[in-house]
Amino acid sequence: MPPTKKSTLVLVAERAGVSIASVSRVMNGLPASQQVIERVRQAADELGYVPDATARSLKAGKTDQIALAVADVGNPVYAGMMHEISRVVTKAGYRLVLSSTGIDPHVQIDLLSSLNRGFADGLILSPLRFTEELCVQLRASRLPIVIIGSLPAGIELDNVRADSGRGIALAVDHLVEQGRQRIAFINGPVDTAPGAARLNGYLRALTEQGRPLNADAQVNASDFTYRAGLKAANALLDQTTPDAIVCANDLLAVAAMKVIFKRGLRVPDDIAIVGMDDTDIADLAQPAITSVDLRSTKRARMAAKLLLRRLENPQAPVEQVVIEPKLVVRASSVSGCAEAEL
Amino acid sequence: MPPTKKSTLVLVAERAGVSIASVSRVMNGLPASQQVIERVRQAADELGYVPDATARSLKAGKTDQIALAVADVGNPVYAGMMHEISRVVTKAGYRLVLSSTGIDPHVQIDLLSSLNRGFADGLILSPLRFTEELCVQLRASRLPIVIIGSLPAGIELDNVRADSGRGIALAVDHLVEQGRQRIAFINGPVDTAPGAARLNGYLRALTEQGRPLNADAQVNASDFTYRAGLKAANALLDQTTPDAIVCANDLLAVAAMKVIFKRGLRVPDDIAIVGMDDTDIADLAQPAITSVDLRSTKRARMAAKLLLRRLENPQAPVEQVVIEPKLVVRASSVSGCAEAEL
Repeated sequence: MPPTKKSTLVLVAERAGVSIASVSRVMNGLPASQQVIERVRQAADELGYVPDATARSLKAGKTDQIALAVADVGNPVYAGMMHEISRVVTKAGYRLVLSSTGIDPHVQIDLLSSLNRGFADGLILSPLRFTEELCVQLRASRLPIVIIGSLPAGIELDNVRADSGRGIALAVDHLVEQGRQRIAFINGPVDTAPGAARLNGYLRALTEQGRPLNADAQVNASDFTYRAGLKAANALLDQTTPDAIVCANDLLAVAAMKVIFKRGLRVPDDIAIVGMDDTDIADLAQPAITSVDLRSTKRARMAAKLLLRRLENPQAPVEQVVIEPKLVVRASSVSGCAEAEL
Repeated sequence: MPPTKKSTLVLVAERAGVSIASVSRVMNGLPASQQVIERVRQAADELGYVPDATARSLKAGKTDQIALAVADVGNPVYAGMMHEISRVVTKAGYRLVLSSTGIDPHVQIDLLSSLNRGFADGLILSPLRFTEELCVQLRASRLPIVIIGSLPAGIELDNVRADSGRGIALAVDHLVEQGRQRIAFINGPVDTAPGAARLNGYLRALTEQGRPLNADAQVNASDFTYRAGLKAANALLDQTTPDAIVCANDLLAVAAMKVIFKRGLRVPDDIAIVGMDDTDIADLAQPAITSVDLRSTKRARMAAKLLLRRLENPQAPVEQVVIEPKLVVRASSVSGCAEAEL
């Protein structure tokens, strides 16, 4: 017979040498020190409690709700992912609820706490920043979580990510083929997981092409948004004269193009542009923007399937999937070529 | 002493002459015939049950969750509204969850049923189509609902809407001032509330300007999306040669501009473009698009405040607010004027 809720809490608290309230906090994913979390988990393990069963015994019941948390609901790449995830989980009888967290990890931590208090049965999270606190919360959480994006070391969760560093290399190699000499880079914040991966990709690709690394040719927007992109592009063009710009997503790319036009320059004749994510923004821009397709629909579908699998079988081995990017060439990076020919 | 859950159901069922299951369905907002709904409501009224108290007695408890349902999460106007609503309700201690319903009213009806089963304390809904079934559900629902957008007759709910017909008139009058002769119109589906309001605005504005109404100059996209806009713009330009196009939102406007460029024509010299919603899309387009600002942030803020007021005081009188639009002029509608001058 499984232990009752009360006996679990009391026994674990005695074993861990912490208060019952602390055990309850850890079990519910509320903030607690790393030390307390580890003592509680060790005690629960020693007492032979299967973590997921323990967590479930503390939960009010199934919500039939899956939460999706993304950084910017205004970015069309997330809208597309939401549609795909919603399609997959609805078929399985779940309702999808969406939270937009911005790039502030505290909002994600609040969300994890809510989740652990039972507002959803599982979470698909696409965090931009992994702070130590967020990692602690992710490790402590007893509920199914799938991460879209790169994972820091020590986080063992189901995971789907694109090789965005490889994606940047595809962009750089294409621009070199087009004869571009001064390939600049507008990134998002480099203290985010995607920002760090993209920066590595850019530096590695230039090095492999035998190009010099020029600090002036790199700027970091304060966020992966259109508004932040306008500022970053102005800063870049104030300090250097590139003949090509690789941008860390399509919103930054369309912002760069806007700034280039405002300065009386042409795309692609004066400056070629490559974006990333291959959203409708790349297609609707004038000229249309060459973009690295990070296969967001496929990533979304796989993330949803991984979460459904985890909900069905909490003991399944952790699965981590890497999706290969591909380059979609449009008019913004190919001189002397009418848009219709691409 | 208030009646218990069981006695309420039994007494109302006896009075209404319907089954206990039917009373339960109506109380929970599940699908039921209009006749059954009216008998149940009448019986509840005659027995002196305050509707909201009755509904609350059937609810498991407060969720601290507010639901927002919009037609297209990929449209930046909704992303902006979500941010503003989230800001207001978070301050009041609620978590906002978002559902994207598409233009299919059945998805909205499913959502209303979920809501009435207790997944949220209130709903802000921006429905595009009011079917008879959706109206029945809205009338039957016992939980706080605020509608963003026009309401059909007979629905008495808190409501915030923009005068989009007046917005179209601002666009038409501006184009007439700019000397445009053949002002075409790309609308969304006319069997939606915004589509109908915009069509009326267009027809009224042309008539007031003494212009002929030409059926060839009007096309309806199958949805208010970029992809639907591409098809609609091609259809329009296959059948007529306008020198200006008013578009029912910014996504349709940027699609029209894309099609115009593909045909080797210029904006604004050959065809002027005006969009609607004044989103980032209008600003990032090249040239930037003149757009009717329907004050989406203000509407969102007011909708959130109306819902919070309703949650606090279920008996407050229904409030309906109309927001006046304004025109934001950019380069897409003004010939011979550099973008920087606008």
